[in-house]
Amino acid sequence: MTGEILCVGTELLLGDIINTNAAFLARELAALGIGVYHQTVVGDNGGRLREAVELALSRSDLLVMTGGLGPTYDDITKETATEALGKKLVWNQQAYDRMEAYFARTGRVMSENNRKQAMMPEGAVVFQNENGTAPGAAMESGEKVIVLLPGPPSEMEPMFCNQVRPYLEGKTGQTFLSRTVHLFGIGESAAEEQLRELMESSHNPTVAPYAKTGEVLLRVTAAAKNEQEAKKLLAPAVEEIQKRMGPYVYGVDVGTLQNAAVTALRQKGLTVSTAESCTGGGVAKRITEVPGASQVLQAGICTYTNRMKAELLGVKERTLQNYGAVSERTALEMAQGVRIRTGADIGVSVTGVAGPDPSEGKPVGLVFVSVSSPWYEQTVQLHLARGSGNERERVRHLAENHALYAVLQAARKAPQR
Amino acid sequence: MTGEILCVGTELLLGDIINTNAAFLARELAALGIGVYHQTVVGDNGGRLREAVELALSRSDLLVMTGGLGPTYDDITKETATEALGKKLVWNQQAYDRMEAYFARTGRVMSENNRKQAMMPEGAVVFQNENGTAPGAAMESGEKVIVLLPGPPSEMEPMFCNQVRPYLEGKTGQTFLSRTVHLFGIGESAAEEQLRELMESSHNPTVAPYAKTGEVLLRVTAAAKNEQEAKKLLAPAVEEIQKRMGPYVYGVDVGTLQNAAVTALRQKGLTVSTAESCTGGGVAKRITEVPGASQVLQAGICTYTNRMKAELLGVKERTLQNYGAVSERTALEMAQGVRIRTGADIGVSVTGVAGPDPSEGKPVGLVFVSVSSPWYEQTVQLHLARGSGNERERVRHLAENHALYAVLQAARKAPQR
Repeated sequence: MTGEILCVGTELLLGDIINTNAAFLARELAALGIGVYHQTVVGDNGGRLREAVELALSRSDLLVMTGGLGPTYDDITKETATEALGKKLVWNQQAYDRMEAYFARTGRVMSENNRKQAMMPEGAVVFQNENGTAPGAAMESGEKVIVLLPGPPSEMEPMFCNQVRPYLEGKTGQTFLSRTVHLFGIGESAAEEQLRELMESSHNPTVAPYAKTGEVLLRVTAAAKNEQEAKKLLAPAVEEIQKRMGPYVYGVDVGTLQNAAVTALRQKGLTVSTAESCTGGGVAKRITEVPGASQVLQAGICTYTNRMKAELLGVKERTLQNYGAVSERTALEMAQGVRIRTGADIGVSVTGVAGPDPSEGKPVGLVFVSVSSPWYEQTVQLHLARGSGNERERVRHLAENHALYAVLQAARKAPQR
Repeated sequence: MTGEILCVGTELLLGDIINTNAAFLARELAALGIGVYHQTVVGDNGGRLREAVELALSRSDLLVMTGGLGPTYDDITKETATEALGKKLVWNQQAYDRMEAYFARTGRVMSENNRKQAMMPEGAVVFQNENGTAPGAAMESGEKVIVLLPGPPSEMEPMFCNQVRPYLEGKTGQTFLSRTVHLFGIGESAAEEQLRELMESSHNPTVAPYAKTGEVLLRVTAAAKNEQEAKKLLAPAVEEIQKRMGPYVYGVDVGTLQNAAVTALRQKGLTVSTAESCTGGGVAKRITEVPGASQVLQAGICTYTNRMKAELLGVKERTLQNYGAVSERTALEMAQGVRIRTGADIGVSVTGVAGPDPSEGKPVGLVFVSVSSPWYEQTVQLHLARGSGNERERVRHLAENHALYAVLQAARKAPQR
């Protein structure tokens, strides 16, 4: 099955917003085994939208459209797509009732305009919108399928996951199941090299790498008649990857590094405090992105001057004088200091040169990350500069990754209480 | 002049990366007065790429392409585009020399493959790549123009700003100049309502609003024969907006909120420290995004428990017992405490309920932001929940905005030393 993605919206054409919908849908369709060879963006213009729909239907089996399902006169996606398949819009009482319930729940008043949103293509499968007003829909004509989705990602993404994905699995007659293996400490191309043979020889499940800044994810996807069969296919492949990539695997389906770290801390009933210099609070911020972080984070102390490192964290004046703020010794004393002063089980610290300029005669990208606990203590020296692009942002993000990874390691090494 | 954007790359089609290039180019082309009605993504496939190029040339004057300029055999953008315009690729010694210099500068070894990158379309304008290896190019045939740009944003964006924009200004015979007016404390639709008449009546300069989470930017763009003329057109329009939107305007061309705050602090020679609860270090992190923040930030203390608020910031036990951690009184004592304990001129604090669950019987989205200095002290109570989407992330980001805005206000109100 081939599919394509057509995003509708003047705000996309003008660059007011970034098209995250296309990336989300591309990933999801790929995971369903649907080949996507085109993504297009057009505005809310009848003629150009019609041309784009017709072109898409001429070359693909499935067209997934987002945006232009709102209540105003310039929202014409539904009307245009319905016409292209030679269908009519009809009143859908259920869609209307659900919308009314949504307005009542969020305490807002429904306007006359919203009635337009309850008109649905005849014979369509209607997708309820749990997070907004515009329902989605799927309609079929011969071999062709059009799926209509709302534009805001907060409405589109849950609608896709909960309703469209099962619908598409029904069409393909297959269930798709994925597991994600998370790697740290190895680059994408090195990981690919080690797994090339496996990736090339494995067709079901498929193995595909995804690179995030400083991390590599391997997505293993199986297609089967049902979930149980899919799980059976997945297990040995995931095991094989864990065997081959052992030291780099930090989890399977663990979400983000900060998620993995918070989960490990909670499982062991441990707390952590952070001491940051060049990351400026970024490690604490990422830990507190995870709901429930309040159970594990004691405090985060960001010290941007030598005086503050001494006063708030207890780093020795002599250490700062002899080795400088960016040094292994300072990093260790920061981690120890924040742990002891806040009464946490684990202290983690980052100190380094984020740039744009060198500091203390030390180069941009030199970073020390230290973790301290009664059972485990380690400091690593990192060189995170690449020589181009926004070094400051990149160095800081990678340094945060290493600190979160150090917390994860310390939590896992903790003795069971 | 009409233009369109064609981004080439399998990693875009698979959703491995988000297409920020399309949004960047869309904004830039709109600012140059070039109407963009289509954005397309295709992979590194000869047939489909050729079709996409031909379709684009059939309906637009200008085609801007990104990606596929690398050294490997599946990078075919340059070859395909050159052929579509009926041209040939020829050896470009200057492009080769520059590439060689780039490799020498970054201490890397040039491979035989890279020679391919020095082949340029005959008669093309070549754009040097300051941040990578692939040069860009512009080539013309009759009324049609194709611009080729590298895929990585860190290479593409500076190349566009420094070389492609002047080239396109030359083609349109006009210079475009923009100024950005930054608003805080007013929503996009309310700002649009107040400025609708001005936006509709003003054609040169044009006035267009851009919404970021919790902020509104107004981009004022003038077209003229030269920079001086453009400046003359811009000045009265910017003045008029400042008059109408007075209390909401916090700056013109100031970059981000954190940039404006750090600049104001530096101008007055002031320092700041942060005390954060629900934002978890996000305010400190944003301040330290600005190079030179080390001159203004003393420390950031993130306290996630009542005990830490008392021990590290000196919030009174009685205050926490009587009013709770999320209260006006606690916010004020946090701001005062961090200021006094770190010896900073200004202390700023955030405490609130980011969610997903209520806390202390207080609802998600309730946030207090306090700023304290010897000359100015203020605490605001905010309700930042919307009832849908990722509330936690949104509440935290908006709370950070308010804290940064409070620092900016305090710095501006400071007496000159």
